[in-house]
Amino acid sequence: MIPIISIVGKSDSGKTTFIEKLVPELVRRGYRIATVKHDVHGFEVDREGKDSWRHKQAGAHTVIISSPTKVALIRDVEKDLRLDEIRDKLVQDVDLILSEGYKKDVQPKIEIFRTEKHKELLCTKEDNLTAIVSDKEFDVGVSCFFLDDIKGVTDFIEKKFLKSKGEEEITLKVDGRTVPLKPFIRDFLLGSIKGMVRSLKGCEKPKKIEIQIEGE
Amino acid sequence: MIPIISIVGKSDSGKTTFIEKLVPELVRRGYRIATVKHDVHGFEVDREGKDSWRHKQAGAHTVIISSPTKVALIRDVEKDLRLDEIRDKLVQDVDLILSEGYKKDVQPKIEIFRTEKHKELLCTKEDNLTAIVSDKEFDVGVSCFFLDDIKGVTDFIEKKFLKSKGEEEITLKVDGRTVPLKPFIRDFLLGSIKGMVRSLKGCEKPKKIEIQIEGE
Repeated sequence: MIPIISIVGKSDSGKTTFIEKLVPELVRRGYRIATVKHDVHGFEVDREGKDSWRHKQAGAHTVIISSPTKVALIRDVEKDLRLDEIRDKLVQDVDLILSEGYKKDVQPKIEIFRTEKHKELLCTKEDNLTAIVSDKEFDVGVSCFFLDDIKGVTDFIEKKFLKSKGEEEITLKVDGRTVPLKPFIRDFLLGSIKGMVRSLKGCEKPKKIEIQIEGE
Repeated sequence: MIPIISIVGKSDSGKTTFIEKLVPELVRRGYRIATVKHDVHGFEVDREGKDSWRHKQAGAHTVIISSPTKVALIRDVEKDLRLDEIRDKLVQDVDLILSEGYKKDVQPKIEIFRTEKHKELLCTKEDNLTAIVSDKEFDVGVSCFFLDDIKGVTDFIEKKFLKSKGEEEITLKVDGRTVPLKPFIRDFLLGSIKGMVRSLKGCEKPKKIEIQIEGE
């Protein structure tokens, strides 16, 4: 499962600027990054009159524009998606998702704090705060980094979120809902499915197995 | 698996206009539609200076903007994606994908043809042509509809691509590649996995099961 970290902070704390520094350092270390920006007001990304815009106006739920170097997608949603829903529905081929904002989501958070702008922290450990990036130190039981210590934050992210690979992971979703698995069930499902798949020609050493079953 | 139909035709045949009429009729009948537009020249959908644009400039592979009513995504790709890759990586929650263009893709095609503009058909049955929409009739072994017969085309699409539901389907992907399954293997995998999942609490009547296994 792709890990998610939310970069949070009060307005004007420099979240976007921080992400602009963090992403290149992660990319330099060989990771692929997805970012998520929350836009409560709605937005316009396609241009009136373009074919894709006409498709959307005609009532298409999802519109995709595909080119040899990038793909764009616009789709309807019925509600504000949680970050795990965004990951499950839309994100592939990356190592880490960084969101800007999403204070209320359950994902782990790094808070940006500036003494000249703010009086107190936005998040506590109960909000799943895992680190603070600030011009002062805090004693709240989470790692602290100075604002310009991009290397330190990246080391922290790498160690805590990116280096735990190698371990086998299984995710089971039934009707769109992730089903929590106890260790015995997890091992049983994992062993049975890997065993079955490995017996198929050309599938002897699977690194990633995806199965989808639909219909009654 | 979400069915895909490509609306093809020579330039100026009226593909976008046809899609603009077809989508509302499909939506009226209760289907959710995704459309795909091929853009060989690249495109610009985000605006300079916006936070999401800054994320992309910083080197993010994927950038997402999420609002309560719609979500937009822009991601890098290494090559022009095939329609089935677009479906597998990006499309969820729809009943049908309509592409504009994609003559060279293997998916089933409906060709738009106008005698005033064109001399001969762009596709043959070998290109997986399944219907022609035109101002004249063709005797090439596929269904023909007149340009204004949106109802007829929609009936055809509904019968051929959308009403085959109910049947159980299993898709297995190993390391990103879809593995073809012989009937015995298909039934064995389907039966075993459904049996295991059904024994879990709250999963007694699964309509859709998704399993992902990663790591060695």
